[in-house]
Amino acid sequence: MLNFDKVGGLISAIAQDADTGEVLMIAWMNREAFDETVRTNRAVYFSRSRNKLWRKGEESGNVQEVKGIFIDCDADAVLLKVKQIGGAACHEGYKSCFFRELTGDDLKVIGERVFDPKAVYGK
Amino acid sequence: MLNFDKVGGLISAIAQDADTGEVLMIAWMNREAFDETVRTNRAVYFSRSRNKLWRKGEESGNVQEVKGIFIDCDADAVLLKVKQIGGAACHEGYKSCFFRELTGDDLKVIGERVFDPKAVYGK
Repeated sequence: MLNFDKVGGLISAIAQDADTGEVLMIAWMNREAFDETVRTNRAVYFSRSRNKLWRKGEESGNVQEVKGIFIDCDADAVLLKVKQIGGAACHEGYKSCFFRELTGDDLKVIGERVFDPKAVYGK
Repeated sequence: MLNFDKVGGLISAIAQDADTGEVLMIAWMNREAFDETVRTNRAVYFSRSRNKLWRKGEESGNVQEVKGIFIDCDADAVLLKVKQIGGAACHEGYKSCFFRELTGDDLKVIGERVFDPKAVYGK
């Protein structure tokens, strides 16, 4: 059903707010992450930097409840429609990780902070 | 501004319908593709299978006019808000490449075909 061979056992996973359509983040999934996501209806990714499963929200509590899973034509990417608990998907405290817009040669912050990362992660 | 070092000179690029919020597709960009996208306001990707720039719509005419470019927190992914000329982003003729939904153990086609790929690509 999915092709995990293109990027070393990984596929791309996009999370989109199921209600508003806002694109929240993009991450990686290996087969195990995908299977657990399907089984639990909570988004599970694979962290390349930590080289392990990343159960989104396991630290912050901001889990993503999965409302729908869509597969692309090449079967190497999935789109999750999710309910983002806590209101913010980004570890920097913004609703979406795409909180900066390219404006001319500059990046302009267009997102609003939902939480203070220092308070949530204690760092 | 962007980190092209994580996946062999590439970043992920998501295209989203600027009006409806529908996620249309995901593809790769190298630095050249990104720069040309910014310069021309048309989506240009990098095709890994063909190993060259992929000016979206160069064959089908279904170009993507770029309305906004957003960068994620890790600076390794961009979100394009686009106007999809021709109404379909997917080479299979669907509006979105994510035209199949996981339903139980099956994939169900939930998208509607906008064009017949055979007629557009002559194959």
